[in-house]
Amino acid sequence: MPYGYNGKILRVDLTSGTVTVEEPGELVYRTYLGGGGLASYYLLKELKPGIDPLSADNILIFASSVISGVPIAGMVRYTVAAKSPLTGAYGEAEAGGFWGPELKFAGFDAVIVTGKAERPSYLWINDGTVEIRSAEKIWGMETGPAQEMIRDELREKRARVAMIGPAGENLVRYACVVNELKHANGRTGMGAVMGSKNLKAVAVRGTKKMEIHDPEKFRELSKNLTELIGSHGPNKVLHKLGTSNLVMAINNQGILPTRNFRDGSFEGAEKLSGERMAETILKSEEGCYACAVRCKRAVEILSGPYATSRCYGGPEYETLSSLGSLLCIDNLEAVAKGNELCNRYTLDTISAGAAIAFAMECYEAGILTKADTEGIDFTFGNPEAMLKGIEWIAFRRRGLGDLLADGVKIAAARIGKGAEKFALHIKGQELPMHDPRGKTGQGLSFAVSPTGADHVRAPHDTAFQAAGPNLGRIAPLGLLEPVAGREMGARKARNFVYLHFIWSLYESLGVCNFVAGPVWALTLPKLVEVVQAVTGWETSLWELMKVGERSVNLGRVFNLREGFGRKDDTLPERLFEPLESGALEGKGLDRGEFDDLLTLYYEAMGWDPKDGVPTRGKLAELNLYWLDEFVKDRR
Amino acid sequence: MPYGYNGKILRVDLTSGTVTVEEPGELVYRTYLGGGGLASYYLLKELKPGIDPLSADNILIFASSVISGVPIAGMVRYTVAAKSPLTGAYGEAEAGGFWGPELKFAGFDAVIVTGKAERPSYLWINDGTVEIRSAEKIWGMETGPAQEMIRDELREKRARVAMIGPAGENLVRYACVVNELKHANGRTGMGAVMGSKNLKAVAVRGTKKMEIHDPEKFRELSKNLTELIGSHGPNKVLHKLGTSNLVMAINNQGILPTRNFRDGSFEGAEKLSGERMAETILKSEEGCYACAVRCKRAVEILSGPYATSRCYGGPEYETLSSLGSLLCIDNLEAVAKGNELCNRYTLDTISAGAAIAFAMECYEAGILTKADTEGIDFTFGNPEAMLKGIEWIAFRRRGLGDLLADGVKIAAARIGKGAEKFALHIKGQELPMHDPRGKTGQGLSFAVSPTGADHVRAPHDTAFQAAGPNLGRIAPLGLLEPVAGREMGARKARNFVYLHFIWSLYESLGVCNFVAGPVWALTLPKLVEVVQAVTGWETSLWELMKVGERSVNLGRVFNLREGFGRKDDTLPERLFEPLESGALEGKGLDRGEFDDLLTLYYEAMGWDPKDGVPTRGKLAELNLYWLDEFVKDRR
Repeated sequence: MPYGYNGKILRVDLTSGTVTVEEPGELVYRTYLGGGGLASYYLLKELKPGIDPLSADNILIFASSVISGVPIAGMVRYTVAAKSPLTGAYGEAEAGGFWGPELKFAGFDAVIVTGKAERPSYLWINDGTVEIRSAEKIWGMETGPAQEMIRDELREKRARVAMIGPAGENLVRYACVVNELKHANGRTGMGAVMGSKNLKAVAVRGTKKMEIHDPEKFRELSKNLTELIGSHGPNKVLHKLGTSNLVMAINNQGILPTRNFRDGSFEGAEKLSGERMAETILKSEEGCYACAVRCKRAVEILSGPYATSRCYGGPEYETLSSLGSLLCIDNLEAVAKGNELCNRYTLDTISAGAAIAFAMECYEAGILTKADTEGIDFTFGNPEAMLKGIEWIAFRRRGLGDLLADGVKIAAARIGKGAEKFALHIKGQELPMHDPRGKTGQGLSFAVSPTGADHVRAPHDTAFQAAGPNLGRIAPLGLLEPVAGREMGARKARNFVYLHFIWSLYESLGVCNFVAGPVWALTLPKLVEVVQAVTGWETSLWELMKVGERSVNLGRVFNLREGFGRKDDTLPERLFEPLESGALEGKGLDRGEFDDLLTLYYEAMGWDPKDGVPTRGKLAELNLYWLDEFVKDRR
Repeated sequence: MPYGYNGKILRVDLTSGTVTVEEPGELVYRTYLGGGGLASYYLLKELKPGIDPLSADNILIFASSVISGVPIAGMVRYTVAAKSPLTGAYGEAEAGGFWGPELKFAGFDAVIVTGKAERPSYLWINDGTVEIRSAEKIWGMETGPAQEMIRDELREKRARVAMIGPAGENLVRYACVVNELKHANGRTGMGAVMGSKNLKAVAVRGTKKMEIHDPEKFRELSKNLTELIGSHGPNKVLHKLGTSNLVMAINNQGILPTRNFRDGSFEGAEKLSGERMAETILKSEEGCYACAVRCKRAVEILSGPYATSRCYGGPEYETLSSLGSLLCIDNLEAVAKGNELCNRYTLDTISAGAAIAFAMECYEAGILTKADTEGIDFTFGNPEAMLKGIEWIAFRRRGLGDLLADGVKIAAARIGKGAEKFALHIKGQELPMHDPRGKTGQGLSFAVSPTGADHVRAPHDTAFQAAGPNLGRIAPLGLLEPVAGREMGARKARNFVYLHFIWSLYESLGVCNFVAGPVWALTLPKLVEVVQAVTGWETSLWELMKVGERSVNLGRVFNLREGFGRKDDTLPERLFEPLESGALEGKGLDRGEFDDLLTLYYEAMGWDPKDGVPTRGKLAELNLYWLDEFVKDRR
């Protein structure tokens, strides 16, 4: 089947110290593309069900994609996947930056890491060659110094390093992986898996050019898209304000997570806003490989209690909310400091903030006391509690730190005393900073994501409302009518399912949601053309959407195999309770409507409504019949 | 939603004699496109379940499509739909020729005919104006003279006339509708529905040009496609030999229906072949509007018992088999004469041949005797029996003619004595000339087609084997691996479902299967571009495939509402028995494998495996939730 694309996958077994290279063949690439699609394919083939995620049996995969690394904005994201120590379910997190493209330039689409190194180690992937090197001298270091030492040791200032800091080494269940000190594969604890394997970092350097199947067509596309992406209105806002432009918009909608999701608006929101950041601590706009949008922030605070180095980037929307509004903290400098600490220690800012919010609510309810908090006042609004909390968690400081380091689900179970009702998680993963009471599709995506509560599994319902005439940008999917954020039922299910496939496709292709997101400068037909030009495949939006759907099913089957089912596809009780303030004050989700939406979703997916098990026919249709053996006992 | 396309639909109520014009709006067009998609949408909305198909309650729809009539080869087909008097299920048949484009030039996308005229009538649609005119003088006439009289009366030689002859007037349950005397909407008895409404013909003349949203893009596509379609290898074969080129190919595969499907090869096949026709009776190659392929035949026999006028066209593959090999008749002239009679009387050649084959097998088994056949020897191989049979059926001659005019299912039930086993039908419609024992996907399509056994619901499995490197032409669907004709199971289900959607899409778009068929000169991505250029919609293969899937579901729901279910989705017993001759001698289908394939199909469709009822979620996903009320009692 000589269509054009082929690539290489690097296998590293840390137990034996062996390195091999395999070529899975074009059919595998065309069927799974990359990212979570490719990673979950390998995990289902090779990972034994029921293993301890922090044991040597876990398999850790870094996956780029067939188009990742081409010089068009947004084609940069890579995925880290493994069984999650936070949820015991499928684990996966994406990051932008430069590491993904660098892996491609070094000659590989993915790295599959098995086993466990006897001593702290890191990988050095340099233009097709691979070394497993000792990390004994850098073990225990924060990311900044560790990266510097690795680059010095390799005598390669341009090595791109994906790594863990103390939180990963200490097996904090939501430790993340960070590249360039600021781009995080944030969720599901992939950093803890690295830690459990004694793998400090993966440093990469590549100088190969990407092979493009149709260079002429690609040049034309690239020129056209670069102009389009640069001049696109929403991208200009992203450039100027970053994702922090969302703080005020979401606050005005009444769904800015505040006080551990009790409120939908925060009186201090303006102080955390993108506008305020731009006027104060913003040092520069930064970006990923080949991107002119540059939506990332670098902030700097030169002195004082919150002094912050710009090399760790700056807080994005999720962090402004999780370390800010969620905790009722309106001190932007403190939030920036918290963000810096998380990047130094490699802690997921969302779960870290949510864990602290949980502790604060327990504290205010008297379930935790000053005896638990070393005398610090853990009330909402106290920046000191937030910063201490981050530090304690990262180092698993005996007591509260160690407790919260396992995530709110385990922590609440340990505490007892009714703490569960303050633990806002799904499948053990803490809620991102989006309130389903104002965007029900997002709520459904939280509930059904194989990774637990996760905001990158579907676009926000409200984005399409805001997009207005840009609704036409999802018209190629046949979605021609607007569906309101709070709507439930058949129309919501339809819109959700298609956009869910698209988001899953983006993930497998490593395409940025801000280049190809709700306000799409990169339209869906153009994305198809990019894949065609790069790979030589005469593909279509049908084939690509089916890869998205396939990837959703891979995650589902992974979790079914681990014992998850319908009971786990739910939302925390709080979201069925009324919001206590803001534009949606008094509004909660309706349990019956939500259950019905879930059933519609299962059925639209070709899954049984009892436990969401794909039918044999659906597996056949998706070219996934090989998965039937894993789920046939669940029917 | 100002994307570009809008159109008009003509409503004619024959009972009251009123004519109205409606504009359903762009959303309806984009959701259903035309053909069977649009027709079944209206039937489900407006037809009462349980009505007698031959009563005034039936609704008869002529439907073109949003792209039909543009000057690119193959964009010409239109659909006639109603509840079928042959099956009691959804009825639908397509035809090529010139009538469909002419309807568009006259300003309409579709004509919806309700009620029943008090006296014989015909419609005259002339550039946006409509008349219901008396057909009393032409009632009873064969097609040729009737068309001439209509044109004379209208003083419009260029009027395109879709009409019925005696078979339609006599309510033969498989009477067809014929335009230009030779292009037939063949199956499911749409001619009988016209007859039951006292509607002799629909004459159309239009001079409007088609509106093209993007004329420049369209010109470029049109130029490119016209060259491509003209020079494409398989199209040259079609031009030279017509569909009759298939006779020898299919005979060699061992699946040329012979002796009422007992045999898979016919010793006289060569005498019926396209090659033989080209050497003998072929007068000219003919075609449809704007087509350079010209795959249709016109034959002429100047004298003798089989003298035939070229104005009735010539036999295509289906007819060469149904009036030839199926009856063991190797006399090409006799078959050509039988074809001519069918076009004069408006009889479906497939069902007519199958009914005669049924009678012949009954005769050879002693169930029918010379007392039933007016002394004619009804053994296989006798051309006289075939020609008399056609005449008797068309005029419902008392005895055998009247008996066979109701189709083999009803006839066998009336005869009793074990005749059922010779009645090869599905849901009451006789089998087309394709043997599922050599192409199992085709068998599945026969079983599940809402119209009963029907060969235009999915491509032939074998076509893709033959296509070889052209398999790449279905690659845009993600179908990347060949699947053998006789294969069953998951891979077959997957290929079938996607191709089934594509064929359904072609039907709704009115696109010819030979321009956009298995060997596709018009590739799928190009087809998307054509729809974009004509309508102005930024559509995609995803959206269009979903229209195809939607249309399949509309037909399914129509039939569920009429009481059909899994028990009706089967194949005649004969196909589970071994073939008695040919390359597949000794091979029959396996009942267990077939049932499993059917279950996989239902599940892949999102239908329950018990009765093939679409789930609520699947209806929601397809934007068909409004159909839930029709099927909720079937779950």
